Parts: sequence; C-alpha cells; structure tokens
Amino acid sequence: MAGGKTHSVSPLAPEGMPELPPIAGVEIGAIEAGVRYKGRTDLMMMRFATGTVAAGVFTTSKCASAPVDWCRSILGKGGARAVVVNSGNANAFTGKAGAAAAKTVAVATAKLVGCKADAVYMASTGVIGEVLPAEKVTAALPKLATTLRPDRWDEAARAIMTTDTFPKAAVRKTDIDGKPVTIVGIAKGSGMIAPDMATMLSFVATDATIPGDVLQALLAKAADKSFNSITVDGDTSTSDTLLAFATGKGVTHKPVTKLGDAHFRHFKAAFEDLLVELAQLVVKDGEGARKFVTVTVTGAQSAKAARKIALTIANSPLVKTAIAGGDANWGRIVMAVGKSGEKADRDKLTIKMGGRLVAEKGAVHPRHDEAAATEHFKGTDIVIEADVGVGKGSATVWTCDLTHGYIDINADYRS
Amino acid sequence: MAGGKTHSVSPLAPEGMPELPPIAGVEIGAIEAGVRYKGRTDLMMMRFATGTVAAGVFTTSKCASAPVDWCRSILGKGGARAVVVNSGNANAFTGKAGAAAAKTVAVATAKLVGCKADAVYMASTGVIGEVLPAEKVTAALPKLATTLRPDRWDEAARAIMTTDTFPKAAVRKTDIDGKPVTIVGIAKGSGMIAPDMATMLSFVATDATIPGDVLQALLAKAADKSFNSITVDGDTSTSDTLLAFATGKGVTHKPVTKLGDAHFRHFKAAFEDLLVELAQLVVKDGEGARKFVTVTVTGAQSAKAARKIALTIANSPLVKTAIAGGDANWGRIVMAVGKSGEKADRDKLTIKMGGRLVAEKGAVHPRHDEAAATEHFKGTDIVIEADVGVGKGSATVWTCDLTHGYIDINADYRS
Repeated sequence: MAGGKTHSVSPLAPEGMPELPPIAGVEIGAIEAGVRYKGRTDLMMMRFATGTVAAGVFTTSKCASAPVDWCRSILGKGGARAVVVNSGNANAFTGKAGAAAAKTVAVATAKLVGCKADAVYMASTGVIGEVLPAEKVTAALPKLATTLRPDRWDEAARAIMTTDTFPKAAVRKTDIDGKPVTIVGIAKGSGMIAPDMATMLSFVATDATIPGDVLQALLAKAADKSFNSITVDGDTSTSDTLLAFATGKGVTHKPVTKLGDAHFRHFKAAFEDLLVELAQLVVKDGEGARKFVTVTVTGAQSAKAARKIALTIANSPLVKTAIAGGDANWGRIVMAVGKSGEKADRDKLTIKMGGRLVAEKGAVHPRHDEAAATEHFKGTDIVIEADVGVGKGSATVWTCDLTHGYIDINADYRS
Repeated sequence: MAGGKTHSVSPLAPEGMPELPPIAGVEIGAIEAGVRYKGRTDLMMMRFATGTVAAGVFTTSKCASAPVDWCRSILGKGGARAVVVNSGNANAFTGKAGAAAAKTVAVATAKLVGCKADAVYMASTGVIGEVLPAEKVTAALPKLATTLRPDRWDEAARAIMTTDTFPKAAVRKTDIDGKPVTIVGIAKGSGMIAPDMATMLSFVATDATIPGDVLQALLAKAADKSFNSITVDGDTSTSDTLLAFATGKGVTHKPVTKLGDAHFRHFKAAFEDLLVELAQLVVKDGEGARKFVTVTVTGAQSAKAARKIALTIANSPLVKTAIAGGDANWGRIVMAVGKSGEKADRDKLTIKMGGRLVAEKGAVHPRHDEAAATEHFKGTDIVIEADVGVGKGSATVWTCDLTHGYIDINADYRS
C-alpha cells in the first residue's frame, strides 16, 4: 500500500467480504483524489435521500481533529444528505486552517448535493499535523458525485483503508414489526499510516425510519458494547468517528418512537450485533495481531467497572505478550485486575482460561491443568474470564496479542 | 541467571555501583536460601538498632501480596528492628496459606532479633500463585543473622534482583542543621521472573533521627516524584514496596519536628534526589530498554493532572515504539495528550523534542526541523516536553522505549 510498507493480510482476516445489498436512499462512490496515496482510491462519498437522519459517536480525545469538531457542531441540527471521507490526511492538530479546510469540503459537497453545509458529515484519516489539501478533495468531488451508485459499498470500504490489511463490512437483515429492513456498515481499523496514527472509522446505514434521538441513543449504547469494547494498544486516535444514517426509504413500518419500543427489539439487537462484528474485524486487523482474544469480566460493582477491569486486562502489555508467547500466565491477569483501580475481592477472585478453572478464591485452583491452559493459549482464539466477586456487573471486550509485528509496524517502518 | 534466560546487561546501566558507606544502626546480610534460584543469594536481611522508625509506600493493586498486607498491618504500630526480603517467590495470590507463611517468617526473624513480630518488615518478589516456602527462609535465617555486617549494602542489592541486569544503589551525604547525615538506598526493578511478574522493591536507610510521621510524609511525597513517576509498561505489580528506615544513630542533630522545618530542607532534597536516582535506575533496566526517556508536562490544571498526562505519553505503545524506531513522531504525543482525559487546550498545545519547538498553538511549528528532531530521537537520552496551556501544574516522568527485546523477554521466554 502507498504511504507505508505493505503488510501481508492478517491471519485473522475472514475468508471474504459479505455480499453488501443496496440500502434504499443511499448512493455511494469512491475516487482517486490523490490526497496522499497514489494508485488507489482515497475519497469516498455517500449521498442520502432527503429525510435521512444521522447519529454520531466520536473520539474522547481532548485534541479532536477538525472533521470531528465539524461533525459535532452539526449533529442534531437537521437532516443528513452526505458524508465525505478521505484517507491519507487526518486534518488533525491543524488549528484554524484545518477547520477552514473542513468547512471548504462541506460547502463544496453541499453545493453538489443541493443542501446546506450542515447536512454534510465528514471524516479524515491519515497524517496528522498537515492541513487537509481541500482543493484536491473539491477538485475530485464533481466527478465523484456523477458516479454515485447504490451498490458500491465494497469500494467505499476499500477507499477508507489506511494500513488495514483487508476491507471491513457487515450486513444484517432484520425487521421492524415484521417489515423487512436492512443495515449495512463498513469500518476501517487501527492501521498506522506513515508518519502518524491509528484511527477507527465506521459508517452504518439503514433503510428503516428512525427518529434522530432514538438513532443517537441506539448508537451510543451499541458503541459501548462494540467499538468502545475493543482495544489494540489502548491508544486513542484524535479522529475516531462512528456515524449512523437512517434513510427511511425502505418498506413502511410501524413508527419507532423510543429505544424501548417492543417492535424495535429485533432491529436493536441486529444493529448492536453488526457493530460488534465490525469492531471485532478491527481487532482482527490489529497491528501484528496473530490471536483474537475475548476477555469477559463478571462479578464487578457495575457494568462500567467490569469494562474497565476487562480493558485493563486487554491493554496490559504483560498479558498481551504472554498471549503472543502462548504462555497461560494467569498471574498477569491477577496483576491486571489488581491495577484496574476498580473494586475486586482478591479472596473471591476466579479466573478461567478457555473455559477451564485456573484460580479460585484468591489462590490457584487445586486441579488447575497447566498443560490444558497452555494448549488453549497456543491457539488463535483465546478466551479469558475473571469473576472479581463483589457485584453483578459484567462486560466483554476483545483484543489481540502484542507481537514483534506490532513493533515492526510501529517502530521500524521508517528505517 | 537462574529462573529464566540470562539477558545481557542493559546498555543504559551505569558504569558501576557507587561506594556504599555503612549507616550507623544498620547491619546487613545476604544468603543462599534456595527459595527458587540456585547458585545465588536470594534472602536479604537488615537488622536495625532499637529506636529505628519505619515508613512505607506500597502497590496500589487491589490484589496485593501477603508481605504487602503484613507490612501495611504493622506500619505505624511501633519501631522497626528488621526487614527480610526474598527473591524467587512473591507470595502473592496465595490466600490464607500465604498470609500464614509471611507471619511465620516475621515470627522467626523476631525471635532471632529479640523483638516483637510487628517490628519485622518484609518483601517478596518472584513467582506468584505459589505459597512462600517459609521453612526454607526460616532454615536459612539463623546463619544469616550471625553474618550481619554494616558494610554489605552491595550484597543486599544483588540478593533482591530477579531479572534485573544490574544491581541498583544510590547514596547521599547531606546535613541536618549542619550535622552530617547519610542516606543509602537499594532497589530492584521491573525484571520479569519466570513464570510471573514485574515488581519494584526499594529499601532506604539513614542514620538521621526522624519522627515516624515525618518520615512517612517525606516518603510519600518523594515516592510521587520518583517511583510513582516512572513506568516501563504501565503494569502494576502486586508486590511493589518502598520502605524507609531512620535509625537515629548518627551524629546528634537539632530535632526534626515536621516536614516543613527549615533545617530539614537539605535532607528532604537529598532524600528525594536519591529516590529519583533509584527510580531512574529501574527505568534504565526496563525490559528491552535501549533508550532513556524524560517526559515533562507543564501548563496542566494541577501537578496531578500533569503527571497523568505525562504518564499517558510515557505509557503509550505508539509513543514508545516511535522512540524505539528513532521516529520523531510528535503526532503520537498529541494523541497521548488527547487521550489522557485531563484538560488540555489543543489550540495552545506546545511540544518540544530535545529542547526544540516542534508544535505550537495547536499546529506544527513553521520552523520545525524534522531532521534535528529525528537526530535527537536516534540518540539514547530522549527529552519530550509538552505544555497543555490550561494552568500551572507540572510533572516529570521517566520511561524507556518499547523494543523487540521487551517482546522477547515477555513473550518468548518459555518457548
């Protein structure tokens, strides 16, 4: 891939892309704008039918990028008519010039689509500290706008890649009160691009009719169980962006009025499931990843506490290197539980690896089978469970191992 | 070294140990007790004169080891007459049997010294999840007690090593109101021992006369600026222990009554300085470390906020791998500032590398000299400064780079 060394496809990649059906009210295109890369598409656009509503969840970074600032400023103001995404330049840490560049792109897109600028969402991923060359984007937009088609999800997934080793997409067909609706989503993961940083972007669209506030509540909740429950290295991009769009152009269905509507239950589950699949694909393309790791914590004071403990385990370099080495090192899990800062009862702590009891009541289990645990850790699908014995909060997070590949990608790529 | 692969001495090690003078009221010994290692000393004891007071700072882990629990239970109850430290077994996550083993060691030591058990401090480092074989320790103690001598600091520093590649010690000669006093400290660092975890231990002694509450306040404050300001991988041991002992057997000096006494100022500064030196030695022996990194954050809302931001930079795998690769990647520093969760003004953020301005007012500095920054990052003594533009809080932390050596030590050592 241009912009950095080519890395071979992750061993955890799925066999191929799912078939991605058109979503009524969504047209998609991708083009080579030459923002930074050569010989590949780097600008993606989706145009939405009038009446489309948007929801967004963004990075918690205090140094958010200009496109994130832009999206936050327009969210909830009105409908969404387009989203424009470029790779190669993140337009982050670029001050007022960066904000102006973002606005230029929004205004140009709005003109082409025939809407106000505040109906244009955007995201950028790539180099930080360099102002987005808005003119390269605006020069490419007119041609891009003429080539939009409903069946180009696959190309969109490829255009937003940076050092991702495979494109990421998922689809769910579900129903609202028996009426068929479809959800499609694409994502890019935490691949690094020279010379800068990891970013997670995801764009999801459905033909269902969902009020903006319900879509926002749904997205925020589902994000916590998916993208906020994965980690590669614990680092947080300035540009992380998750946007959902509901066009309301599918089959007419009973109106959705709130998140708790009984007839919305299938959709809610399918939506969350799709986000979990996309989030897991990001982990499976983690830099240097050779193993997929599921960490479940139960018995915590709250779901939030459980997630913090699970993320502490999943982010621990000592745990991650033990997994890379196929070393069923439960002591490092105890260490990580202890350092999380959340309440845990050492004398009730239970740890399982691959479903087998390893430690119980604050000490190694008398029938702990080290050979079986090691066998599990030598596999590629690692499951760690910890019950911390103080409450009913639970959470599951996903991560990958920490390997020489991670160091290669992040330390050696300039040498 | 027994118990794991031998790793070559850190390239950041000092040329040799300083000369470590006796401290009046302290006798030291080390012996081969065979707790786990063979062919090296693994049990260290210090005997203190009557009247010695102790202070302690311990791991924040919620899963602290039995020796940490023991020390916490006796701290502040009375004088200190001994400290016993073994390597090879951490006696952590060992439940009631572990607590009983710790008490057995304390009782046996007290009998030899002629004091109550609650005047005996202890620490253990090594394997976790296995109860300390107290009988090996108690069997070795009588011989050890007969060989105690004031001039054996060097041997003590070696006996507490695990996968440390060099022994760590520091000395300061200072004064209280013009009367000479001496401080000596030893430490072990974050070397891993098969099959478990990193631990930081440090023991400091002085011949000054210091009330227990003043010594505790001094130690807590100095720990924040030293051992709590270093990081290798952000992981927290179940056993981290820092103990200070003041024998009051040196030259008689004007009494110290509180931390703020003007005549105590030299001592305070020297004590803190010694702890910083020991803490830096631990970083210089970080697993796989090839570079020593100083991160200073200014302009934060408070000193605490500044330390959190600095630690977020210092713990970021993306920052640490960039340093390993000699890549002056300031974008990753922006990312780390942003993810710290502490208040920072992106549009006032200033970043320096090796003393040179890289970014200012939320954007790259117009005269940023990438070649000079890269040259600095290719060295072994890296200095990063960030001003986050919201207040007057400042802090400095120290760390090392994240290299293939870290992965080798932590992932591959069993294979």
